[in-house]
Amino acid sequence: MTEHFTNISKIKYEGKDSKNPLAFKYYNPEEIVGGKTMKEQLRFTMSYWHTLTGEGQDPFGVGTMERPWTGEKDAMKLAKIRMEAAFEFMDKLGIDYFAFHDRDIAPEGKDLAETNKNLDEIVAYCKELMERYNKKLLWGTANMFSNPRFVHGAATTCNADVYAYAGAQVKKALEITKELGGENYVFWGGREGYETLLNTDMKLEQDNLARFFHMAVDYAKKIDFTGQFLIEPKPKEPTKHQYDFDVATVMAFLKKYDLDKYFKVNIEANHATLAGHTFQHEVALARINGILGSLDINQGDMLLGWDTDQFPTNIYDATLLMYEVFKNGGIAPGGLNFDAKVRRASFEAEDLFLGYIAGMDTLAKGLKVAHKLLQGGELEKFVEDRYKSFTEGIGKDIVEGKTNFEALEQYALNNSCIKNKSGRQEMLEAILNQYIFNE
Amino acid sequence: MTEHFTNISKIKYEGKDSKNPLAFKYYNPEEIVGGKTMKEQLRFTMSYWHTLTGEGQDPFGVGTMERPWTGEKDAMKLAKIRMEAAFEFMDKLGIDYFAFHDRDIAPEGKDLAETNKNLDEIVAYCKELMERYNKKLLWGTANMFSNPRFVHGAATTCNADVYAYAGAQVKKALEITKELGGENYVFWGGREGYETLLNTDMKLEQDNLARFFHMAVDYAKKIDFTGQFLIEPKPKEPTKHQYDFDVATVMAFLKKYDLDKYFKVNIEANHATLAGHTFQHEVALARINGILGSLDINQGDMLLGWDTDQFPTNIYDATLLMYEVFKNGGIAPGGLNFDAKVRRASFEAEDLFLGYIAGMDTLAKGLKVAHKLLQGGELEKFVEDRYKSFTEGIGKDIVEGKTNFEALEQYALNNSCIKNKSGRQEMLEAILNQYIFNE
Amino acid sequence: MTEHFTNISKIKYEGKDSKNPLAFKYYNPEEIVGGKTMKEQLRFTMSYWHTLTGEGQDPFGVGTMERPWTGEKDAMKLAKIRMEAAFEFMDKLGIDYFAFHDRDIAPEGKDLAETNKNLDEIVAYCKELMERYNKKLLWGTANMFSNPRFVHGAATTCNADVYAYAGAQVKKALEITKELGGENYVFWGGREGYETLLNTDMKLEQDNLARFFHMAVDYAKKIDFTGQFLIEPKPKEPTKHQYDFDVATVMAFLKKYDLDKYFKVNIEANHATLAGHTFQHEVALARINGILGSLDINQGDMLLGWDTDQFPTNIYDATLLMYEVFKNGGIAPGGLNFDAKVRRASFEAEDLFLGYIAGMDTLAKGLKVAHKLLQGGELEKFVEDRYKSFTEGIGKDIVEGKTNFEALEQYALNNSCIKNKSGRQEMLEAILNQYIFNE
Amino acid sequence: MTEHFTNISKIKYEGKDSKNPLAFKYYNPEEIVGGKTMKEQLRFTMSYWHTLTGEGQDPFGVGTMERPWTGEKDAMKLAKIRMEAAFEFMDKLGIDYFAFHDRDIAPEGKDLAETNKNLDEIVAYCKELMERYNKKLLWGTANMFSNPRFVHGAATTCNADVYAYAGAQVKKALEITKELGGENYVFWGGREGYETLLNTDMKLEQDNLARFFHMAVDYAKKIDFTGQFLIEPKPKEPTKHQYDFDVATVMAFLKKYDLDKYFKVNIEANHATLAGHTFQHEVALARINGILGSLDINQGDMLLGWDTDQFPTNIYDATLLMYEVFKNGGIAPGGLNFDAKVRRASFEAEDLFLGYIAGMDTLAKGLKVAHKLLQGGELEKFVEDRYKSFTEGIGKDIVEGKTNFEALEQYALNNSCIKNKSGRQEMLEAILNQYIFNE
Repeated sequence: MTEHFTNISKIKYEGKDSKNPLAFKYYNPEEIVGGKTMKEQLRFTMSYWHTLTGEGQDPFGVGTMERPWTGEKDAMKLAKIRMEAAFEFMDKLGIDYFAFHDRDIAPEGKDLAETNKNLDEIVAYCKELMERYNKKLLWGTANMFSNPRFVHGAATTCNADVYAYAGAQVKKALEITKELGGENYVFWGGREGYETLLNTDMKLEQDNLARFFHMAVDYAKKIDFTGQFLIEPKPKEPTKHQYDFDVATVMAFLKKYDLDKYFKVNIEANHATLAGHTFQHEVALARINGILGSLDINQGDMLLGWDTDQFPTNIYDATLLMYEVFKNGGIAPGGLNFDAKVRRASFEAEDLFLGYIAGMDTLAKGLKVAHKLLQGGELEKFVEDRYKSFTEGIGKDIVEGKTNFEALEQYALNNSCIKNKSGRQEMLEAILNQYIFNE
Repeated sequence: MTEHFTNISKIKYEGKDSKNPLAFKYYNPEEIVGGKTMKEQLRFTMSYWHTLTGEGQDPFGVGTMERPWTGEKDAMKLAKIRMEAAFEFMDKLGIDYFAFHDRDIAPEGKDLAETNKNLDEIVAYCKELMERYNKKLLWGTANMFSNPRFVHGAATTCNADVYAYAGAQVKKALEITKELGGENYVFWGGREGYETLLNTDMKLEQDNLARFFHMAVDYAKKIDFTGQFLIEPKPKEPTKHQYDFDVATVMAFLKKYDLDKYFKVNIEANHATLAGHTFQHEVALARINGILGSLDINQGDMLLGWDTDQFPTNIYDATLLMYEVFKNGGIAPGGLNFDAKVRRASFEAEDLFLGYIAGMDTLAKGLKVAHKLLQGGELEKFVEDRYKSFTEGIGKDIVEGKTNFEALEQYALNNSCIKNKSGRQEMLEAILNQYIFNE
Repeated sequence: MTEHFTNISKIKYEGKDSKNPLAFKYYNPEEIVGGKTMKEQLRFTMSYWHTLTGEGQDPFGVGTMERPWTGEKDAMKLAKIRMEAAFEFMDKLGIDYFAFHDRDIAPEGKDLAETNKNLDEIVAYCKELMERYNKKLLWGTANMFSNPRFVHGAATTCNADVYAYAGAQVKKALEITKELGGENYVFWGGREGYETLLNTDMKLEQDNLARFFHMAVDYAKKIDFTGQFLIEPKPKEPTKHQYDFDVATVMAFLKKYDLDKYFKVNIEANHATLAGHTFQHEVALARINGILGSLDINQGDMLLGWDTDQFPTNIYDATLLMYEVFKNGGIAPGGLNFDAKVRRASFEAEDLFLGYIAGMDTLAKGLKVAHKLLQGGELEKFVEDRYKSFTEGIGKDIVEGKTNFEALEQYALNNSCIKNKSGRQEMLEAILNQYIFNE
Repeated sequence: MTEHFTNISKIKYEGKDSKNPLAFKYYNPEEIVGGKTMKEQLRFTMSYWHTLTGEGQDPFGVGTMERPWTGEKDAMKLAKIRMEAAFEFMDKLGIDYFAFHDRDIAPEGKDLAETNKNLDEIVAYCKELMERYNKKLLWGTANMFSNPRFVHGAATTCNADVYAYAGAQVKKALEITKELGGENYVFWGGREGYETLLNTDMKLEQDNLARFFHMAVDYAKKIDFTGQFLIEPKPKEPTKHQYDFDVATVMAFLKKYDLDKYFKVNIEANHATLAGHTFQHEVALARINGILGSLDINQGDMLLGWDTDQFPTNIYDATLLMYEVFKNGGIAPGGLNFDAKVRRASFEAEDLFLGYIAGMDTLAKGLKVAHKLLQGGELEKFVEDRYKSFTEGIGKDIVEGKTNFEALEQYALNNSCIKNKSGRQEMLEAILNQYIFNE
């Protein structure tokens, strides 16, 4: 097998004082944290699109990325080189999982039949490489937003021909995901939304989306695909309004259309903040509703209004994320997928490694801080005390559903003095800092 | 009865060329639009808080408002003067409905018993004035956010004593709303949210909120209050995260806790935009889900990140709002409540009238434009044509649930040429402008 | 000459009741408003990039635009077809001006020499067509952001070779702008900014930018280019921070580097709002500082955080813009350039015309409303009265610089009663509406 | 002297493993970092307003703060108790500086004369306590935004009487700042801005503001006040548009009106982010322009659109801030002023201490990380290398002003291959993390 990233060796853990940019300082894959290895806890996943096919274009300029395969014109050859490079990349970084869209790995042909044939050829090669490198597929998905046919959406298009095409595409994507042993299947609603209400029948579009999901559920049963279905919320971009705005919106949709038992969510950090939420909020909301499926880790620039998909390097976000993941009992069968891309100005192949290292080290540190935080228990204890009044007396009655407004009124009329306690936000932030600073 | 706004006469419709600031130019209450009078269509409502008790303070300065009752020190006398002024105000503007929080109309006493007594006294006076002036209560609600006891929330507080007090308060608010013939009862979750997840048990708080709503439903049945329950979404402010973030979030909540058959939504324009949505979006979403209950009309400054509650003077918003209301078959038993306040720098009593006139004229104009737009039918026709493919062939099968992924794939494999049509956003915006410019 | 937009005839003014989408309803080029024809007042300008070379790609999908020249592979042939189409387009819409980047009109060659040769060939053709169609160049500019060489900026790059290239490029762009009689020359700082301060020497970059502008001024003198230099502010996108953030930032820069007598500003609506300002604010600020040069008219979506460059269809913005333009004594030698693109979903060639018609009609209406507003004089009168205290007594002394803190203190100590008057924002908004509704 | 915070002892440094909430874990005042004690480097300052007079009200609720002086009705007694508590507070926290508005420390009287008399009385007491406790005044300022007379602004009001009052107020504030040995004097333009352009003469308002500043400069000379004048930028809130939008805007203003030699800036973190900038950006911009005067340290919630003034607990911001301060050669005669308030839900007096501790520890940690970062030199070295091309050849000519467009063109024509290098943002972020994690 030709080596593609020829000047990069396997990335090793060299410890916190290493000055080698191409080494891990905090991510030590076999180190035990919380009863499992870091590797098992974190389930790091390579995103095929940003890593292999991203070219660095933006709305004001063409691609900048310099890649070993730059210049290859034959689409199928290019697809194979990228596939090889993908496994070499995972191998060198010690990442076990990957995730892809159908169109990331194989080019469209002149018609759907040829497109599917291309896919089959590459999937076979992928399977071979998975075995050779011992790598696993976290999830598959279908890209139903890049091709012009999806200009008005896929499952929410105004054009039934496009809807049919989308159905065919997901059918195939489910098949290949199963073929490759994918543990999940993701729906990110690329253009499932609207540009203007002036031309949109929102009800029909949402009804059709639900029908589409039901067909996916049915087909998965038929082919015995047992992976978890996941919806990935995003509030805006590319469309002005995306139907899967945030976790709560997805919950409402799933319940309305009786889909809630089949779907969980794949939450992305940058999508959360674009929706006006912290990443932790979205993760916690999914957790307490039993629908935390998987995570797209990255970060946005809080002063920019678009999806920047930066590598996650913020220790606060990493810590609070892993804190939620611990409370969830882990993230499996989901994982931590780097839906992150190197900056347009970080165009050298080496930057791909540097980006992943930055992210993996940050998450590893966050994992350790979160674990200590839970072991220390200050936050847990504070919260427990804060709500203690609901474990006794009138509070207990409330929680157990044994009271009503008349009883509450009687209680309140006889309770002349209500005393609240400080929420202590500043102290709690200082405690969090102490764990971060001291780990 | 003493006149309070002594230099203001009844506001009359003088037509579009009037130069009298204290006259309507477009709102002609008895003019028929769409088969009903403007007054019936618009169901304008006075907000008691902004109009009678708002003093113009902001985070950087104290109140500025100059009112006829400024200086009155006795709390109950003040409450009565304001009540009289409220009816005089509605009478002079020709507004039939009002809406209030319990604490707007009567002061808190030394304990809950005295507070309730104060309320009873004022409610009796209010009822008398309602009859005298022939005015109606659109909705009542309880203010459970201003008093320090609610610092951590009311139905989502961490303190069971506060929860009990809130229950008692809503019980009473339901009683007085019924007593005054209120057609709806609103829950705006003032501080039902969190400041930081570090000290918050979000699951318990939301479970308790649901328990609270169920108790409200039960008590309403018990006292035979038949008004519509409404939840008013808001994403942030005062708390960092409000649980009733937007319409979709409320839908998820109601469904999760089996509350969806009892509640609709009261949508506020400025809350919609703070959540990242257009007002039309939120209204349309509620409409297609059958939960459009009532409307708080105002507008925010799109460049400011807080709830400015300005009087609605944007003709686009007014037109698209009334367009949705027409499609909804009207807004009754809800109404158009001016949850709007005069700017801090508009501190003269006359500005209250000028603000309402600005808003009422804008909505009246919007009503007429929306009606013409529906009569003209260009937008409707465009949308109908756009989705035509779902009324025949494969599209019809999709909508009728008669297809599956295998069938869609067969169709797609045989359909070599997909042809989309332009969404024509620019043309549709020009058509909307033409209706606005020509009305 | 081959006709390119074969199914579109000349766009005519058919008046406000026309139902023909391909006709003007409000823009009547020869109608006199404020002493000049609409055409003279508005100086409409076609943007070459959005109109001729825009393909509709976005960060999540490839181009969608269907154009008569789609499929032409030869770069120079394509350039010529587009140039012909450009003039046909202007001719059919009755637009007199255009604006372009060097790279819009001619393709890059294998090196700078060839690139310049390509440019010369197309410029000669352009000149010929300008004469044939009687069209004028509002402004030229250089695209120094699309090519990967500009990944770190052009005049603010960290690479002196790139800086030199940029200098060469602007030299040529100035020459061709002069050759075509351009009335202005624009600098929009495409990637003149930074992605992260961690790798940036902001001082050196800004110093170099100033040096670049001085060289441009010198070279313009040398070749006797007498057009107006304009800087176009934008706060963010593509870089995380753009140095020409807004009008005030540009003012500070120009003053610091003694460039203020050579430059004015070209203000874009969507850039203003991304910076947190209204378009009117930026225009008014430039006006009162004597640096209002030209205008890029478009509009952003206030709920989206990126430059959407939509066609301007908001009558409030159009009215307030023209109000400022009237106060400025017109916009010449600048113009109203449609830096606007049809939506990705408006991909038919016809949409180009529909977009311009939507924008031109809106601005025409705004022009008429603004003119009436100034004739009516209510706003002017209100403002005059509001500041009257500065035309007499202590206020006059203040304005004339005849007072000091001691004198103000004496005055204040003797002035026991300060009386403010309402700012009447609501009334003024209603007056503005009345002018819009009644025009 | 009565002790006010009776249950709080002096806050001691107990080191990083302390579990005592009322102890410093990182701030060790006498520890040497970068050649000076932490105390000298950080120049921590107590904000009088948030600490002593803040009551916790917000737009939706009244004050919540429980303070030792709660209940004191006599305004002058209350002022004295607060003054005593202020010094006790500084003493217990080991903070050497404070900053105040005139109206924070003494109540307004029935007229200006009485107000000034109140102020004199309290200032005398303050001076006595300063000596007793050995504390210093970082800066004074005048509150010209809370009182209703300033509803339309102070130095930008439309009412000359108000302008005169403002002049008198600043005269007095300068006198007392001098009397107390204040090292700076700050102008934060509370309501110096506009609510709507419809009623605003922006040019007159800004001209008047400049006149006001010139009078302040003149009066300072007259009374021999030698402290540094500072302007504090803020983009919005309370007014819709504040004239001192950001650092660049202030620079433009100062240059336009020939005020730049008299003023520097006081930069606040939360104001920076509301303007769309990072705190580091604003500080760096001031630094490279030689106008970095002082710092208001706090932090905003990046998902909220208003000034939340939270205690600064983010280690990234703290590190990058101190990094800039080191590059500036320190911040004196400015300081680090905690313009931060405890959350409304942190209403116990103890929370005041906990908030300051959280902030001081974070800044102390940031100081140490920044120092190590500069000692390590990786970032400095990277930047130096990155711009190396400007130290030789054509780059050197550019920087030295020895070239022109013709020469650049010649160079570019002969330079067939431009090679850029990666900006390495991800690697640099990882290096920053390593310094933070390892300190």
